[in-house]
Amino acid sequence: MADFHISPLAKARFPIMPLINGLQFSTTAANIKYPNREDLLLFDINCGATLAGVFTKSSTLAAPVAWSQNIAKRGYARGLLVNSGNANAFTGDEGRKDVESCAVAASRLLGCSSSELLVASTGVIGEPLPVRRIVTAIENMKDKPQGNSWEKAALAIGTTDTYPKGASCETEIDGVPIQIAGIAKGSGMIAPNMATMLAFIFTDASLPPDILRSVLKSGASKTFNCITVDSDTSTSDMVLLFSTGRARNVLPISYSDTKLRRFKNSLNKVLKDLAIQVVRDGEGAKKLITIEVRRAKTSSSAHKIGMAIANSPLVKTAIAGEDANWGRIVMAVGKTGIALDQSNLLISIGGILITQHGKRVENYDEEKLTSHLKGNEILLQVDLSEGNCNAKIWTCDLTHDYIRINADYRT
Amino acid sequence: MADFHISPLAKARFPIMPLINGLQFSTTAANIKYPNREDLLLFDINCGATLAGVFTKSSTLAAPVAWSQNIAKRGYARGLLVNSGNANAFTGDEGRKDVESCAVAASRLLGCSSSELLVASTGVIGEPLPVRRIVTAIENMKDKPQGNSWEKAALAIGTTDTYPKGASCETEIDGVPIQIAGIAKGSGMIAPNMATMLAFIFTDASLPPDILRSVLKSGASKTFNCITVDSDTSTSDMVLLFSTGRARNVLPISYSDTKLRRFKNSLNKVLKDLAIQVVRDGEGAKKLITIEVRRAKTSSSAHKIGMAIANSPLVKTAIAGEDANWGRIVMAVGKTGIALDQSNLLISIGGILITQHGKRVENYDEEKLTSHLKGNEILLQVDLSEGNCNAKIWTCDLTHDYIRINADYRT
Repeated sequence: MADFHISPLAKARFPIMPLINGLQFSTTAANIKYPNREDLLLFDINCGATLAGVFTKSSTLAAPVAWSQNIAKRGYARGLLVNSGNANAFTGDEGRKDVESCAVAASRLLGCSSSELLVASTGVIGEPLPVRRIVTAIENMKDKPQGNSWEKAALAIGTTDTYPKGASCETEIDGVPIQIAGIAKGSGMIAPNMATMLAFIFTDASLPPDILRSVLKSGASKTFNCITVDSDTSTSDMVLLFSTGRARNVLPISYSDTKLRRFKNSLNKVLKDLAIQVVRDGEGAKKLITIEVRRAKTSSSAHKIGMAIANSPLVKTAIAGEDANWGRIVMAVGKTGIALDQSNLLISIGGILITQHGKRVENYDEEKLTSHLKGNEILLQVDLSEGNCNAKIWTCDLTHDYIRINADYRT
Repeated sequence: MADFHISPLAKARFPIMPLINGLQFSTTAANIKYPNREDLLLFDINCGATLAGVFTKSSTLAAPVAWSQNIAKRGYARGLLVNSGNANAFTGDEGRKDVESCAVAASRLLGCSSSELLVASTGVIGEPLPVRRIVTAIENMKDKPQGNSWEKAALAIGTTDTYPKGASCETEIDGVPIQIAGIAKGSGMIAPNMATMLAFIFTDASLPPDILRSVLKSGASKTFNCITVDSDTSTSDMVLLFSTGRARNVLPISYSDTKLRRFKNSLNKVLKDLAIQVVRDGEGAKKLITIEVRRAKTSSSAHKIGMAIANSPLVKTAIAGEDANWGRIVMAVGKTGIALDQSNLLISIGGILITQHGKRVENYDEEKLTSHLKGNEILLQVDLSEGNCNAKIWTCDLTHDYIRINADYRT
């Protein structure tokens, strides 16, 4: 698998990530896929936490997803066990039993019920989980001091990620200081319809499950649901948000409570930061592509057009080739079938207007455009001039390395 | 652009393709994109023909598509002009005028009205059509003898195709011998929703436009609408079927007339043959992938699941890597969100059953599987065990060459 070249950006983040009051965690090597790699991560929330989750919409979802969905419905958790190296997906009845065995072992260690212990797995689909190795590794964790290293935690959950992903933010609710911190992993099978990767976010805020669900759902709809690497949706992925309540803020009365304004903004920043880290590290990605769709008639059509551009192999290869092939953006807009007037379609690349009046703008600044395309942050803007709904989507380019990574991932 | 390495298969086909009574055609070099390449093709149906067409569903369709759709509605044509090297798409009012100028020039040559002259264009999007060069080239065709070479015709309409595509069939209607012959081009932006490439099929059968429309629509739904190279839908593509009536068969009374049975089968064979040639020559393709979805609850869900597999970059790269990564097929089925029982999902590769009871079959013949994956015709079968609806989809693998071709197509 990929080496973990830690990006300078990510490396700089980890040392400043705060610990969350009420949360402890540690990692260990269970030798799931590779020997001596830390591939198991256990979060211990000894005072318990309220919990919200968003999960893959896949109809072939993996056993741990089904398990954790059930716990998320109740909205309360004491711990979370995550493994990389094996997704425990499409593993039948054994797979379901294996999740339970892992949850039982971990809950024993934490002194709680297995029904308070979430499980998340990522890795290859269809291989039986090496459940004995995992259970043994969990049992051995009792003699190990808790590490509380966000960086080690993020490394433990990675698969083809080239660097660990973390983000944090300090905020407040009604004047009480609040910490938010989270980690994520990518980096193939990233597509909309939620939870197309793993992300775990923790806060010491005190928030009831219904409000936690609303803030996560709203935040994810503008962040994790707006990223795509290759249009493929995983069987396994989830975003979980835990609040330990240790900050002892006054409970907000509802999702709309103005006391929550800053918290919601801060949480969304963390979610967006993690989501963009995932896209930036998309398999083989060399460039981050931001797609802004403006003035569509509906939010849904804005989102659909943005996703069509983001998922178009022809757009993504053009960006990889640093080629201003804007005709492919026209094609991608058109393939949605959404009715529009071509003469109103304004396309800009790097802020340079390329189309107007249904055709190419003559004499746009080719040099400036070329220089933008040589950079590693590409901005594509599509203005439909038809309504007042916008969408923002993030993706990456499609390169030879995507093929290289995916034509021999399993073997 | 790509050299035209004529595949032995295609090469063998052209000499046996019949001329269609009532049809003549010739090619010429208009220097549209490359000098001295034959890039213009003119079909002359001097007795006129009934006509049916299926067109791209793109909402940013090109000027020639809009022009030809109007003529197809009337169901009668005297000629068809096709150019490669420029799609005349997203070219505004000038683009519309340019189509008309080309149609007028061609109709003058043929001695008909421009409203009887269809136009099709393929190539780069957004560049103004070099209309003067095309008009001049058309005018010069009057001094050129008609070539009637199917191979030259197929070569003239190609873009990134690596070989020309043609197919033909002899059949009968009520005992009267009938000829069918057609050509097609690919090979990027191939996705469902019709006419995602150019194909022109001619027959000497005598058929009214309404019946012609029904046979084409029905045939295309099982052939051209079941292929995909990269999920991208073009702004420009169309499939046209012309019948010159010279065979002088008795007119069938309706689409359901039993006299038409053999004709419909034969036409479908030609459509399928051309469609598969297009996929086989998908950009960078090394392997033809046939996906059979069986026993779904509805035809639409069978088609949707087949297309999800066919368009999954992770499935396509696994096939390119000759890797039996069937977990990605599970993922692709799941990403449709179509409700299903995993324990009923049977997945086979090359006829070898890989999953049963919601998990991997133990001890399947790995050697046989590996040998199948090393071949260049891959069969993926998904049986949902839930209903009685089937679908068959064709696609190709996703290779380094797709990236190479598309990261520098325009420049």
